Amino acid sequence: MRKELKEIYRVQKELALLDGTNSLLNWDLKTLMPPKGFLDRAEQISVISRMAHNKFIAPAFQKLVNETIQTRLRKKDRAVLERLKKDLDKAKKLPASFVEEESKITALAYATWQDAKADNNFRLFKPHLEAIVALKRKECRLKDLPGHPYNSLLDSFEEGMTTGRLKETFAYLKVELIKLLNEIKASPKYKRKPVLSECSLEGKEQLCQFIRKRMGVNDGRSRLDNTEHPFTTTIDADDVRITTNYNKSIKKCFFSTVHEAGHALYNLNLPKNYQHTALWGGTSLGMHESQSRFWENVIARSPAFWKYMFPVFQKNCDTGISEDDWVFEINKVKPSLIRTAADEITYNLHIILRFELELELIEGNLKVRQVPKAWKQKMKEYLGVVPRTNRDGCLQDVHWSMGIFGYFPTYTLGNIYAAQLYYAMLKDKPDIMSDLRRGKYDRVLKWLRKHVHKYGRSLSAEEIVEKTTGEGLNPSVLIKYLREKYSKIYDL
Amino acid sequence: MRKELKEIYRVQKELALLDGTNSLLNWDLKTLMPPKGFLDRAEQISVISRMAHNKFIAPAFQKLVNETIQTRLRKKDRAVLERLKKDLDKAKKLPASFVEEESKITALAYATWQDAKADNNFRLFKPHLEAIVALKRKECRLKDLPGHPYNSLLDSFEEGMTTGRLKETFAYLKVELIKLLNEIKASPKYKRKPVLSECSLEGKEQLCQFIRKRMGVNDGRSRLDNTEHPFTTTIDADDVRITTNYNKSIKKCFFSTVHEAGHALYNLNLPKNYQHTALWGGTSLGMHESQSRFWENVIARSPAFWKYMFPVFQKNCDTGISEDDWVFEINKVKPSLIRTAADEITYNLHIILRFELELELIEGNLKVRQVPKAWKQKMKEYLGVVPRTNRDGCLQDVHWSMGIFGYFPTYTLGNIYAAQLYYAMLKDKPDIMSDLRRGKYDRVLKWLRKHVHKYGRSLSAEEIVEKTTGEGLNPSVLIKYLREKYSKIYDL
Repeated sequence: MRKELKEIYRVQKELALLDGTNSLLNWDLKTLMPPKGFLDRAEQISVISRMAHNKFIAPAFQKLVNETIQTRLRKKDRAVLERLKKDLDKAKKLPASFVEEESKITALAYATWQDAKADNNFRLFKPHLEAIVALKRKECRLKDLPGHPYNSLLDSFEEGMTTGRLKETFAYLKVELIKLLNEIKASPKYKRKPVLSECSLEGKEQLCQFIRKRMGVNDGRSRLDNTEHPFTTTIDADDVRITTNYNKSIKKCFFSTVHEAGHALYNLNLPKNYQHTALWGGTSLGMHESQSRFWENVIARSPAFWKYMFPVFQKNCDTGISEDDWVFEINKVKPSLIRTAADEITYNLHIILRFELELELIEGNLKVRQVPKAWKQKMKEYLGVVPRTNRDGCLQDVHWSMGIFGYFPTYTLGNIYAAQLYYAMLKDKPDIMSDLRRGKYDRVLKWLRKHVHKYGRSLSAEEIVEKTTGEGLNPSVLIKYLREKYSKIYDL
Repeated sequence: MRKELKEIYRVQKELALLDGTNSLLNWDLKTLMPPKGFLDRAEQISVISRMAHNKFIAPAFQKLVNETIQTRLRKKDRAVLERLKKDLDKAKKLPASFVEEESKITALAYATWQDAKADNNFRLFKPHLEAIVALKRKECRLKDLPGHPYNSLLDSFEEGMTTGRLKETFAYLKVELIKLLNEIKASPKYKRKPVLSECSLEGKEQLCQFIRKRMGVNDGRSRLDNTEHPFTTTIDADDVRITTNYNKSIKKCFFSTVHEAGHALYNLNLPKNYQHTALWGGTSLGMHESQSRFWENVIARSPAFWKYMFPVFQKNCDTGISEDDWVFEINKVKPSLIRTAADEITYNLHIILRFELELELIEGNLKVRQVPKAWKQKMKEYLGVVPRTNRDGCLQDVHWSMGIFGYFPTYTLGNIYAAQLYYAMLKDKPDIMSDLRRGKYDRVLKWLRKHVHKYGRSLSAEEIVEKTTGEGLNPSVLIKYLREKYSKIYDL
């Protein structure tokens, strides 16, 4: 290999190693760190991030990439360098002063949001959210992608996605989801009484450890730990860790585990020869979410899955609930105030609401002080329930306090992609869902590896879905999936 | 503060943060990391080390330190800069090529040593040890401190200590320790039958967690975890973690915990205003070891300590052993093959043996191939026991395989300092040991903080001991302590 190319791969590898180091600092912060370690930890993370960023956008490195990309290259090297150049061109658009400003504003906003949520005090958070909206508008100007300003925010999470396509997609979904929700509400089964199930801490641990290992997230390359908010973190290609919250109900901690295991399987099954290059990683947040949702909803909430798992569940959680009641319980539809507790149908309405508000904030058509009222109005209109407090309303999510705008839509994009992948898998392997009755998930994983994981970042989310299903993003497939599933459950 | 000084403090802080990051990478590697994460972890550690080293010895930084130190400075700033300059002058003596060569040679040697020890095959390890000895001789030439070449190796662990003083000190100790050992062997109590004690895993955990918290190593700024080899790691001034090995006997894991907690207390009680500067840290390995040994031997092996702790011990470990038998058991003297299992007297003979062999290897008066035989001869002469295998002889310790020469003597220096500090404490607070009967350790900790911890690296080990006891290193105080202690135990 030429020495220029070698140097580019060397720097990429160093960046990957620094990135993994930062992931460990973050993981430890959330799992095991003695609380007083917090102050230095924040600074350790910031030093490593800064060193990595400076190494990445160093003029000499940019020059090397820009020059090498214009020479004759082998196919894989070209793919790596093109991906790298795209990342570089994006990274250098935000000057260090902006990044620093953002980290200061959001550090303060995040701390204030925690208090504001605890005290149910929107006014406390308001000036911080105003500063963040101004910052995000500035970010749109700095990035300056074509079309709607919000495109520049979307791009950080779902490259190539546009505001126009999201508006169209979500407008369609909103109508269809509300229609389906109303049909379900009219079903006699909608009033079926919930059957409570509880489980000891030990039972929950056993069950969660069992399922993640069974899915293929094993101890050689992963771990499962306990944290307040479940998450997946990638320390390196052979060390991808997940967490769940055992203090929550068995239902919550089990499905969080499956969800995070779905994320982990994506990263654990990326091609080895992409490691330490710009092509390594999930291609977008939407595609990543498609993997977690696929395992959580399509696989683990299916009746077939519980044919095998229910006896295991009973062994660890002596609840007295019947299999039929449990499968109904985990798929029950009921509009609620909190996004993270929502079912598969109403979840997307929560997302659409947030997308619409974000868009109006960025456009300047909605003032921050109007958010609580707008939130309540939309909740009433889309879900038929209205939060009495802002704590259960516009203060519920952490995202805005961290400056994360343009992220929420990827949750619903993930649901759409998951449904599209599901039907493509069924077409390819019509009997595959019967594997679940025997607790066998390896064919499912193999299929996902072949049709999603193996591309890494070499194709965009939509290119992957097009290659696999024959068409790009198609929200009607999500509606088809939900209609089929819930028609059975609610006898529609 | 002037901007030059500010910049120096900024760089020091970054170095401290990088150092802590590396400590976390190491800690995680040894405690929780999924095994397959190993390859990238080694590279993460190496990237961070290299970045830190390059930042430290960067010519611009050296110039800044050298220029600023010649200006008018406040007392504390002068102390910081002088310590920093000393560290810098040492660091730059080893060129990057040497550091790289050393890391390659030792990585291979360490891996081979593990196999060689497992297979009891010295010949396998021999060429690696030869390479390491050659490397260490080269290190002596590069560092080139005055006097004996071995001084340059000692200096990495015990600044200011010389080969001449160690020779004298150890020659004296050898005679006195063998004399004392022979007296003990002649005592009727020497043949007292051991009483076995066992304890459930849960009981061991409870007891170890109890004692470290009681000593003041609490959850706010520390944790205790399980690893093969116990160690202390400092991630930052408010995050100092210790480990023990619960798979070992209660005796081993309890005293390991107290030992590591002693190390942790040193770092947890360093002055806050030294944080993120060159003055922060233990002043030498000998002084660090004095702290761990002080707590382990002087405090936790004393009969007074068990007046309070024995009922706690009984509650967690239902062993049927009597308090008297237990206190005898934990202080029993018996020459053995393995250093880490040795009692307070014979431990130092193990150290002297290693020091003498290291010295001869560095001087070139002993060939690596002669080590097994020399080891056995000295074991026979000093301890009266001879290993039948090299696994229990010269292959037992990890140090040489990692290129660590000049380190072993600090263990005995720690024992000497601990004894000197003990008598100084008694002189200052004659009734302090009676606190132990009530499980109160705060006056002891306060005394150590005032007389050792508070100096950080602003004084050398010997300066600290001189300030506190009125004299420098004095091995006769260790003999006095051991004679007093063991005369009682063995009715000498």
